[in-house]
Amino acid sequence: MENLEEKSRLREVRKNVGEGGSNDFKPLVVIEFDVTAQQPAIEWLLAKLQASQKNNGAELLVRPVVMQHNQETIFFISATMERLLLATEMMEIKKVYKDGYHREFTLQDVANFKNSEDLDNFLTVAEKQKIILHELEALRAGEEDGNIPGYEAIKLYPGKSLVKKYLSRQIIKNLIPLHDQEQLKRLRVEWYYSFKSTQPIDKIRDYFGEKIAMYFAFLGFYTIALIPPAVIGILYFITSWESVYREAIFAVFNLVWTTIFLEYWKRYCSELAYRWGTLDHVSSQLEEPRANFYGVMGENLVTRKPEPVYPKYKQVLRFYGVTVPIIALCLVVCFYIMLGYFILQDWADQCYAKEKGWLNFINLLMPTVIYAVVIGIVNTIYRKVAKQLNDWENHRLQSSYENHLTVKLILFNFVNCFISLFYVAFYMQNMTVLRSHLSTLLVTQQLVGQFRESLVPFFFHRRRAIKVDEAIKKVANVQKIEFFNGEVDEAVQKQASIESTMDVYEGTMDDYLEMFLQFGYVFLFSSVFPLAALWALINNVMEIPSDAFKMCRVFQRPFSEPAANIGVWQVAFEIIGAIAVMTNCALIGMNPDVQKLLPSNISAVNIVIIFVIIEHIILSIKAAVAFFIPDVPKWVEIEMARMAYQSRLALQKEQIERAEKERILRRQIYPNRV
Amino acid sequence: MENLEEKSRLREVRKNVGEGGSNDFKPLVVIEFDVTAQQPAIEWLLAKLQASQKNNGAELLVRPVVMQHNQETIFFISATMERLLLATEMMEIKKVYKDGYHREFTLQDVANFKNSEDLDNFLTVAEKQKIILHELEALRAGEEDGNIPGYEAIKLYPGKSLVKKYLSRQIIKNLIPLHDQEQLKRLRVEWYYSFKSTQPIDKIRDYFGEKIAMYFAFLGFYTIALIPPAVIGILYFITSWESVYREAIFAVFNLVWTTIFLEYWKRYCSELAYRWGTLDHVSSQLEEPRANFYGVMGENLVTRKPEPVYPKYKQVLRFYGVTVPIIALCLVVCFYIMLGYFILQDWADQCYAKEKGWLNFINLLMPTVIYAVVIGIVNTIYRKVAKQLNDWENHRLQSSYENHLTVKLILFNFVNCFISLFYVAFYMQNMTVLRSHLSTLLVTQQLVGQFRESLVPFFFHRRRAIKVDEAIKKVANVQKIEFFNGEVDEAVQKQASIESTMDVYEGTMDDYLEMFLQFGYVFLFSSVFPLAALWALINNVMEIPSDAFKMCRVFQRPFSEPAANIGVWQVAFEIIGAIAVMTNCALIGMNPDVQKLLPSNISAVNIVIIFVIIEHIILSIKAAVAFFIPDVPKWVEIEMARMAYQSRLALQKEQIERAEKERILRRQIYPNRV
Repeated sequence: MENLEEKSRLREVRKNVGEGGSNDFKPLVVIEFDVTAQQPAIEWLLAKLQASQKNNGAELLVRPVVMQHNQETIFFISATMERLLLATEMMEIKKVYKDGYHREFTLQDVANFKNSEDLDNFLTVAEKQKIILHELEALRAGEEDGNIPGYEAIKLYPGKSLVKKYLSRQIIKNLIPLHDQEQLKRLRVEWYYSFKSTQPIDKIRDYFGEKIAMYFAFLGFYTIALIPPAVIGILYFITSWESVYREAIFAVFNLVWTTIFLEYWKRYCSELAYRWGTLDHVSSQLEEPRANFYGVMGENLVTRKPEPVYPKYKQVLRFYGVTVPIIALCLVVCFYIMLGYFILQDWADQCYAKEKGWLNFINLLMPTVIYAVVIGIVNTIYRKVAKQLNDWENHRLQSSYENHLTVKLILFNFVNCFISLFYVAFYMQNMTVLRSHLSTLLVTQQLVGQFRESLVPFFFHRRRAIKVDEAIKKVANVQKIEFFNGEVDEAVQKQASIESTMDVYEGTMDDYLEMFLQFGYVFLFSSVFPLAALWALINNVMEIPSDAFKMCRVFQRPFSEPAANIGVWQVAFEIIGAIAVMTNCALIGMNPDVQKLLPSNISAVNIVIIFVIIEHIILSIKAAVAFFIPDVPKWVEIEMARMAYQSRLALQKEQIERAEKERILRRQIYPNRV
Repeated sequence: MENLEEKSRLREVRKNVGEGGSNDFKPLVVIEFDVTAQQPAIEWLLAKLQASQKNNGAELLVRPVVMQHNQETIFFISATMERLLLATEMMEIKKVYKDGYHREFTLQDVANFKNSEDLDNFLTVAEKQKIILHELEALRAGEEDGNIPGYEAIKLYPGKSLVKKYLSRQIIKNLIPLHDQEQLKRLRVEWYYSFKSTQPIDKIRDYFGEKIAMYFAFLGFYTIALIPPAVIGILYFITSWESVYREAIFAVFNLVWTTIFLEYWKRYCSELAYRWGTLDHVSSQLEEPRANFYGVMGENLVTRKPEPVYPKYKQVLRFYGVTVPIIALCLVVCFYIMLGYFILQDWADQCYAKEKGWLNFINLLMPTVIYAVVIGIVNTIYRKVAKQLNDWENHRLQSSYENHLTVKLILFNFVNCFISLFYVAFYMQNMTVLRSHLSTLLVTQQLVGQFRESLVPFFFHRRRAIKVDEAIKKVANVQKIEFFNGEVDEAVQKQASIESTMDVYEGTMDDYLEMFLQFGYVFLFSSVFPLAALWALINNVMEIPSDAFKMCRVFQRPFSEPAANIGVWQVAFEIIGAIAVMTNCALIGMNPDVQKLLPSNISAVNIVIIFVIIEHIILSIKAAVAFFIPDVPKWVEIEMARMAYQSRLALQKEQIERAEKERILRRQIYPNRV
């Protein structure tokens, strides 16, 4: 090792902080530097992380370790209890107050918060990790910092987040919260080892944060909501009840059912959000801008705190001037690819009809294969483009950023997955093809999904874990682990090594997207393929444990993120619900059996009009159902009002007290005036 | 006069209060007793009104006067400035704070509110009157009050509002806030004497309260929004551009225009509400129950203050079990009356076709006359039924009560006014009849409306004012005005007499209803009758001053009521906007000229499908427009966030201070523990 002397310098810096022995050091977050990372850059960041807050440091506990098997430097990061609590106050994190409500934590009032007897465990591990992440990201370049030491080319501007810069320049390879093996084990047992009908949502929230817990709550709720349509689908399948009303009744049930499901989900969702203290709407002006948001340094319009400012009109221009046309173009391309597929297929069919040789039989399958490959390529390209456009739109808030990205993905995937079905259903008007096409799409997508999402990553994960194990063993045999490493448990070191090789969880977006497409397959054409709900139900019953497994064992632990609802997904599902009314009414209206049922003297025009009227009536019923089911349960509303009432009383009291103080002051200054 | 001795007793009671001379007594509210009112009941109420608050009185300034010309007792009511300010605090009325935000008034902090230098005029007259009304209504029967003195039969229950009881038993004939002649004069000049393009909305609000100001703001905004469709209508009328696109373009413009108008109204509305301090949503749990709400005495779930409680399930049962069926029945009756009208008309037409005698010509007009009369009768009956049902549903909140009543009226009037148009348009499919029918309905309704709303009441009002004048003069000639009357200006006495004979303003409901129906006439069938917008515009340009005149001169001054928006009317207008898409698409689709335009090989079925698709596209565009225009202007949102932020800071501070106090206390009690 050529840089031994530099490492002793590192040790010097670390000694200055003078924290306790390694026994009570429990790392929460791990920073893994790239193997090519320059030593001065590592040391500089280390010093910043350890420096006190008044010296513009992060004042965290850091243990640097050089891993022997791959020569990578890893920082194991933790913080003192006081540091964490101070940050909790600054970040306005809500904790349960003695009166049972979630209130913003204040250090001086700590004794009045629940569970504050044991301050070490007052915050959950996930909360501690979230706080450390916040403090890491809040470490910003000062006026005097021109560039990252060791990297002349990487300029720093005042106010720029250092860790973000390290990450974007890949000096830092990974920034991950460590799993808590003990907690994780307990969670896994409750979540997917025991065969329980409900998931431990609150514990998932404690471990992974509100956003991921919300996804699993939705997945569970949606799966249960699939039971009635699935049961009816089975009944339809096994009974021989032949009636033209068959499909119509099923479709109408499904259409109203989707509304009821989505409305009751909203209620359940706000119940969860209330329980987790995320319900009350924080104005988007108060939310902190996302780390990648750039602009001229200005001040927040509400809090007057400094933050980057970017003109709104530029954002709007970029969105409407560039993003919208490009997205529209992609959708059109998607449509033409679909058209090409049908033309090819038509040609192949004709060839096969002319001469039934094996060459022409293979030819028959070619269009589907080509279509699948092309669509796969286009999808990959589109995702990259969408991501870049979204970055470039420079959204101020994380929520707005995610919503815009989600809408982009939804639009494309909707067109991509459903346009061929629409084409078959309404242009070709071939119900047999539609049914087979739909069932093929649904079942294959589910199988491929299960395979790609869980089994493949798990296999790779296993292989990598074994590799890490072997590498560590080999190193241990050749040379003893260096002095640094005694301060962090070897088990933890190994855990960090393994977790850093795990896949990164990219957020709930793809998981929701999968459910969204499934929802579309099940309900858009339910009158044609009543068994779809059953397939979806079976898939989801397997999806819950496999997604849970994925979260616990395949992916790096994600940082906890707050959530009060499922965001744009709610709207997306509702729109599918509305489109489903149109498609199902059209499908039933096109059914010749149904048309025969009507008096024969009704003209074709009137049949269409009748179905349009039915469609409008169903849409109105859906709107009425949505209107009459309150979005928030009564008890939650009352509790929220109680909290607001107490806040108002407190505000009044504060006003009065201030006025009183001012009066006393005035009397002291002007004792003669009364 | 037989009850002279009773009057001297009155004087005794009044003297005890010992208020200043009549010169600085400016009455704000007037209670007019019925001429048959029993003297003990009057005296008892007087004592209660004057008694101090600690003796469960209202602690108001009251001057009782017996009017000589009609022997009615009138209480002239005012309050001391301190009493009013205390009530302002209790009622949590918002005033402008020194930082420019509306904050709930607190007496101790009074110096920090704007305009608090001149405390006498700190509150507007309308606010003072609202406060006095609140204090009058808050006067409740105690445990010891068995019945109203002088009325053995009228039992009182603890907690029952006395004034409400007096009013419902018609012991009190009128409870009205007096006009402020000086302010009124200034307002009138600005409002409808000068030919200005804008109304003095803020001054209307100061004088009449937010609810009425909101109506006039809406009326003005809507009138301006009518200009573009009216201009296009004129252009269409004077130019000879003949194209099948003519109606289609106009209709599409109108359909999108209604959405833009309604969305921008919402923005303007929230701007007004912000300016008036009514914007931030007060949870319905915090709102006080309406005075006529009955139930067992319980406590408010949020504030824990005592209030009547009525089980929700009973309300729901009453609504769905009784109200909904009855209303549905009424609508069906309405439909049958319309059917009967067309059958009669058909029969009359046939008679006239057979033999064109004058008898048959009269016969030709008879169905319309009968229809108008029957509809008038049904409408009157329906209103009574709707009102009674609504009372019986026992809504807890005034807003909920009004919304339910409004919806009942909207439903009936929608069916009543538009069903015949729908019948002609879509069942008879006769566009010529539709056009003439529509224009007749619109123009006659507007003329009748103007006549009935302003001219008739004004005429009656004039006549009554003259009568009062004569009666007073006659009395003055016969006998001198009694000793009581010296304490209240004779001019004020006369004003009270005249105002008590004025009509009661029944609220904005009928005014909105008129605009709502007009909106329907203009936009539901705009492709058939493009000049409708012009007629509506002309009507509204006259409607503003005539409504203003009505408010200032014809009706009793109403008590000021808060409002943040136009409530269910917004939804009602939006629904009309959505229905208009359907009707207009259908009308254009039915147009043979338009159908000719399409390639001749398109089947009738496909024509219908094309128009259904167009309809869906327009509906989607409307939804998108509504979605993309934010309901609240950016600056209002930021200001609201700022206010919320300051409240949060204050709450935190309060928590900390309380914790600090507790710590100090603990240290004093247990000095040895640190």
